[in-house]
Amino acid sequence: MVFRTAARDRQRLLNNLNSDTQGEALKMARIKAVLFGTGNMGRLIAGNLVEKGVEITGAVSKTHVGQDLGEVTRIGRPAGVTVSEDPEEMLAGSEADIAVLATCSSMAELYPDASLCLKRGINVVTITEGAFYPWAYDPDMAADLDNLAKQHGVTLSATGVQDIFWTNSIALLTGVCHRIDSVEFEGTADFGTLGPAVLNNLPLGLTPDQFLEMAPPPDAKPPASIVGMGFEALIDKLRMTINKVDGGIELVLAGADVECIGLNKVIRAGQISGLREIMTIETNEGPVFRARFAAKIFEPDDRENYVWNIRGVPDIHLQQNDVPSVEITCASIVNRIPDVLNAEPGFITAEKLGTPCYRTSSLENYVD
Amino acid sequence: MVFRTAARDRQRLLNNLNSDTQGEALKMARIKAVLFGTGNMGRLIAGNLVEKGVEITGAVSKTHVGQDLGEVTRIGRPAGVTVSEDPEEMLAGSEADIAVLATCSSMAELYPDASLCLKRGINVVTITEGAFYPWAYDPDMAADLDNLAKQHGVTLSATGVQDIFWTNSIALLTGVCHRIDSVEFEGTADFGTLGPAVLNNLPLGLTPDQFLEMAPPPDAKPPASIVGMGFEALIDKLRMTINKVDGGIELVLAGADVECIGLNKVIRAGQISGLREIMTIETNEGPVFRARFAAKIFEPDDRENYVWNIRGVPDIHLQQNDVPSVEITCASIVNRIPDVLNAEPGFITAEKLGTPCYRTSSLENYVD
Repeated sequence: MVFRTAARDRQRLLNNLNSDTQGEALKMARIKAVLFGTGNMGRLIAGNLVEKGVEITGAVSKTHVGQDLGEVTRIGRPAGVTVSEDPEEMLAGSEADIAVLATCSSMAELYPDASLCLKRGINVVTITEGAFYPWAYDPDMAADLDNLAKQHGVTLSATGVQDIFWTNSIALLTGVCHRIDSVEFEGTADFGTLGPAVLNNLPLGLTPDQFLEMAPPPDAKPPASIVGMGFEALIDKLRMTINKVDGGIELVLAGADVECIGLNKVIRAGQISGLREIMTIETNEGPVFRARFAAKIFEPDDRENYVWNIRGVPDIHLQQNDVPSVEITCASIVNRIPDVLNAEPGFITAEKLGTPCYRTSSLENYVD
Repeated sequence: MVFRTAARDRQRLLNNLNSDTQGEALKMARIKAVLFGTGNMGRLIAGNLVEKGVEITGAVSKTHVGQDLGEVTRIGRPAGVTVSEDPEEMLAGSEADIAVLATCSSMAELYPDASLCLKRGINVVTITEGAFYPWAYDPDMAADLDNLAKQHGVTLSATGVQDIFWTNSIALLTGVCHRIDSVEFEGTADFGTLGPAVLNNLPLGLTPDQFLEMAPPPDAKPPASIVGMGFEALIDKLRMTINKVDGGIELVLAGADVECIGLNKVIRAGQISGLREIMTIETNEGPVFRARFAAKIFEPDDRENYVWNIRGVPDIHLQQNDVPSVEITCASIVNRIPDVLNAEPGFITAEKLGTPCYRTSSLENYVD
């Protein structure tokens, strides 16, 4: 039994509320972007950019050089942009507002292209994992890029699954808690969908003994931690301070032979198919942050799941099942473009950017 | 097998980053608040306020008049504040920065106390459901309070489960989507934990026939919709505009006799134990918002669950089970105080407030 209430037409009210915004939006020019990278991510991002009204004015890649960007990406029609191998030459004619970088995992790899763009006064948004919150892992390079961005009045920022799913949504959900004792994260991510830019950093296909022989000395600089950066951004967002970071890695071994498409090889049962990071961060304010995060080449029964437990008053449980992390990453980087353009100059990490959300209209409508 | 990496002490780095903030924080005075309402919510909120370093300088209620606030609330020790029945008298000596209101459900009930506080230059935060996003349901009262707040340079805002769980977290999660076709919400809330301020607005204990006889005429002003306000705030946050709102209510009938503690009566099997709102909102931008939300007196097997599905690219599913809505509401209103104090003057609804999050320290540390 349903009792119907009168349908209400709110268009006039809402149109009045939004008329100023709409009027301004009409005056704005489309955003011009250049794309770095035509790998698994770059190809999907290119299509997303075009569907959100962004004009792609240049593309650079180590592969697909000389081809039209539309032929090699999800754009689905000729784009009138030829993939270049020379970033300097490509940028010279681009008149870009923003560079979209999907080429690498580490700050060291990101540095040359990012600094080139910043020096030309071009904003940068990237999915480089190591750039998500690099202040503790690569502080010198982060400070250099921050300075360069400020000098040239532009912004650099990194996004990915960590941005909305790990950092900003968890920070927001803590707002329903009166007390927090701990924040606990357990996750499993499929790296089998990624390309060599990421996979070459993992000891895939080694035996545990081979890994031990090749392990770096204990005093070597530890690599940037995806989980650690997500947690540090979250802790910063919550205005807490870190007392102690402790952790390690656990080898994940293949249960059966599994094909690693990105590296074009087979990982045999018993060989390393991934790594699990284990981390505990104590804060000076009390709450403890704990994580177990496995990144691996998936076997048929594996699922990309994240489980979060905020223990306190009240307890909050969040489970994210079958996470489509590639789609999320490629949508997030495009949705984030207005936030990056609206941000103050500098290396502005994602927890300090504007609150992210879906963009229904052409992206220039969201630029202040 | 766990390979341990070196524990890293980041305290010095992080202390440097935060030293300016900490220095300023020491100079701030504690926030002074007055509390309206010592019902189920007010009693819990009082304890939360004190534990977050807020100084309660006055309290007003229809019950517990003349008693010490500490004796009748979760504060757990004498508070040195006597519950008054006269808001004017109580406010006169309070020197309050903010009034925390937990007395009523509707804008009409909220209006007298809220306007009194605003005229005295006191900010207001409330859990009044009807104040969450009242622009379409009570536009005149909302505009009056907005003007009053602006005239006196203070802010009025409403929070509750809708704030973080329904509006802001869903808006944020849409940021991982490239395309949205629809946002679908199905929820069940336990009103058995609430008091007469809310329950007297529901046709509890009537038979369906009695309800039909007492139903208001079809052209009567429809009551403010909890779901509708949550959706309208979400749609506004996503910068979409409403084309058409359609919906109705469905009666929820008790499956067995169930005690309604808040009204001190038994609802018999077959009598009305709650209402289910059904709503569809079409936007001019394309995405459709659909909800089915039941608010009822719970029977033993009922659970307070919310299920969200964002259909698009990619699909996002969010399920919130066994939601402790009373604890969430009472934590949210306290965590929101710094956001309200930091906001620009006016009636600032929750989707336009600062991003909410957990407050680990005394609340004055989060005021800009």
